[in-house]
Amino acid sequence: MPDAHLPDAPINPSRLKAMMEQVSTFGGKPNGAMTRLTLSKTDGQARDWLGSWFKEHRFEQQIDPIGNQFGKLSLAGDNAPTVMVGSHLDSQPNGGRFDGALGVVSACEAVLAVAERMEVEGRLAACNFQVVNWTNEEGARFQPSLLGSSVFAGAIELDWALDRADGDGMTVRQSLAEIGYAGTAVVERPDALIELHIEGDDKLFAASERFGIFTRFWGATKYRLAFLGEQAHTGPTPMAQRKDALLAAAYLMADLRQLANDHGLDLHTSVGRLEVHPNSPNTVPAEAVLFIELRSGSPDVLAQAEEKMKVRIEVAAQRAGVGYEVRSIDRRRAGGFAPGLIALAERVAARRGETARHLDTIGGHDAVAMSAVCPSIVMAVRSKDGVIHHPTEYTSPEDHAASTQILADMLYALARDGLKSIASEANA
Amino acid sequence: MPDAHLPDAPINPSRLKAMMEQVSTFGGKPNGAMTRLTLSKTDGQARDWLGSWFKEHRFEQQIDPIGNQFGKLSLAGDNAPTVMVGSHLDSQPNGGRFDGALGVVSACEAVLAVAERMEVEGRLAACNFQVVNWTNEEGARFQPSLLGSSVFAGAIELDWALDRADGDGMTVRQSLAEIGYAGTAVVERPDALIELHIEGDDKLFAASERFGIFTRFWGATKYRLAFLGEQAHTGPTPMAQRKDALLAAAYLMADLRQLANDHGLDLHTSVGRLEVHPNSPNTVPAEAVLFIELRSGSPDVLAQAEEKMKVRIEVAAQRAGVGYEVRSIDRRRAGGFAPGLIALAERVAARRGETARHLDTIGGHDAVAMSAVCPSIVMAVRSKDGVIHHPTEYTSPEDHAASTQILADMLYALARDGLKSIASEANA
Repeated sequence: MPDAHLPDAPINPSRLKAMMEQVSTFGGKPNGAMTRLTLSKTDGQARDWLGSWFKEHRFEQQIDPIGNQFGKLSLAGDNAPTVMVGSHLDSQPNGGRFDGALGVVSACEAVLAVAERMEVEGRLAACNFQVVNWTNEEGARFQPSLLGSSVFAGAIELDWALDRADGDGMTVRQSLAEIGYAGTAVVERPDALIELHIEGDDKLFAASERFGIFTRFWGATKYRLAFLGEQAHTGPTPMAQRKDALLAAAYLMADLRQLANDHGLDLHTSVGRLEVHPNSPNTVPAEAVLFIELRSGSPDVLAQAEEKMKVRIEVAAQRAGVGYEVRSIDRRRAGGFAPGLIALAERVAARRGETARHLDTIGGHDAVAMSAVCPSIVMAVRSKDGVIHHPTEYTSPEDHAASTQILADMLYALARDGLKSIASEANA
Repeated sequence: MPDAHLPDAPINPSRLKAMMEQVSTFGGKPNGAMTRLTLSKTDGQARDWLGSWFKEHRFEQQIDPIGNQFGKLSLAGDNAPTVMVGSHLDSQPNGGRFDGALGVVSACEAVLAVAERMEVEGRLAACNFQVVNWTNEEGARFQPSLLGSSVFAGAIELDWALDRADGDGMTVRQSLAEIGYAGTAVVERPDALIELHIEGDDKLFAASERFGIFTRFWGATKYRLAFLGEQAHTGPTPMAQRKDALLAAAYLMADLRQLANDHGLDLHTSVGRLEVHPNSPNTVPAEAVLFIELRSGSPDVLAQAEEKMKVRIEVAAQRAGVGYEVRSIDRRRAGGFAPGLIALAERVAARRGETARHLDTIGGHDAVAMSAVCPSIVMAVRSKDGVIHHPTEYTSPEDHAASTQILADMLYALARDGLKSIASEANA
């Protein structure tokens, strides 16, 4: 391949840095904390800012019915394939500013760099590009996570997704209307999906490497489980008569941790959210709703863990004298990303002198949802100390620029040579 | 004593029932549920209603700086002693309509009945009466509970109490101002305090008795304890690196239950409220705040349980790899109510043909706080199946009337004979 001369599609690091700083103003605090819950007013402001950027750079904006925000740049005419590139602008509550937003900003800069290069060359590209900002990747305000990409990929129903409600009972549908992002565009599935994201682990940082490629994704089984006890006064009610839903939750949380300890490194278990009703100091809790996650790279381990958990749920309910109901189950398969895109990422990274360590992604990514419908990949840039979902989450401007350059090189290779090399191989 | 002829101060059962129905409209639902959190808008409406009732019946209203609402009826002139009688209008979230409100309504009716009787007799009473509606008995919205009576009794500082904040950060001070109950009246301590309350246990109901006398009150030790972990992504973060505050809470809650099981019937333990931060399904909890209660009729058992709990807190924190801090401790002594008032209640109950079973009160009552400064008593009317803090909490109009009649008879005896019989004996 004609890869001899550098640079191919040089990005502009100061322009990239400025964009990263701008997007961080929406929901960011001086200490690095970011709270930009999906479809909040702050998220709406960040979306408006991205829309303005699209307009300024002649990207055609489209909003689909779940609020995914797209900006398309036609470099190859109407019948050419489309490469989608992006991530998400929503954040965790009191999270960091790089998780998600870094990938959207990198996508904008990389596509712009390719467009500038094509203009210098004065010829049509082999594909068009479409930047994407997915709705509710985080799953912090609405569950499940990966909501926008899952609807787009056809994995979950639009109407069901629109009816999801947050802790205050406000639905996705209402929230979209409130911030003006209840779109109607019918957006076609792309021919490839490329995402850049912070690693969210410390493997790269510990190895003093800054770029990696996620080749496999872990599966996850997520339960929303309610223990159902009986409200009573914590004072006079005899202990033997109490039906304490929170106590059952306590038993199960301790058991779930033990489950992970027994399995070794290939199983992660957690309860990140717990809702207690009525949650009054003087009242025995009538209801405790646990948001449980089991994660593993092995479908077998995941299935076994789920069976064991079911037994422990039963035991916890009996010990506390309460009932329970499973309110929802969300399953994500384990699998691998597109070999052709992995190979491409390796090639361009090598030319830039970067190692491209192969990583597992354990957290969900929109590219995982998209991998069911088109060749997809997520690439990783190191985060300091591996921190994610925390105000101290940090990726340096230099690392951000280096990884964005690799992204731009990949896009340029596809613009120049077409998608044959990646489309001919099926996803693993 | 000249107790031969009945009735002494006959109450009006239909007037009583109408009042009970009226007060239930403020925050009540058709299914019996009541949500009238202290100093809420709804509580303000109930207070306004009580104030109108005071005005209509020529009770002089006073509001003190913590928002306690008093209505005084002078039947004996300025230098006579004062008997305070009442309870509280605030409720638990999704609680019942009788807990508290029943005692306020009974106080109004009983004082009115005595006044009507005195008017028939055409002579001065030996004492004046003051109906009271205490602020924040429940402790559901603001902690600690018994806030208004504790400030009034001098057990806690006014300024500290005014600075207590609810889960949304709103203070007692702000809430009082918002509903117009930031009073300035200096109200003197009464010479006796009498409260009627639903039993909150099923001892009377199980024995088919409708009236009882609390003679002893349990002590309580309440901790607000925060486990402090570290926020991280529930996906990639290796289990061994997690510092899960909620997991520590789970360990401790299981241990606290075990503590009660080991002690037998004389120790109650509970965690009714748990606050988790950031409480997102994908994030390892950084903070879990537990509202712990230990209760016992024995000061020794209570002290031993607290020492054991301290050890378990340490163990739970170490097992989960987190830190902790005790944010507040609230201690209530165990003790007994005024023997003179107990004897008076027994006498008038016997004349009405009611047994007067002696009971322990385990839940707090404003009369417990007041018992430190004047002869005090709480009397119990049965609640169906012993239910309290729940929408199905129920006391029949007949039981309500019968217990209110006993209350009126007690007040009439004091109005006629003076307070010597009760004041001459110290509290136990």
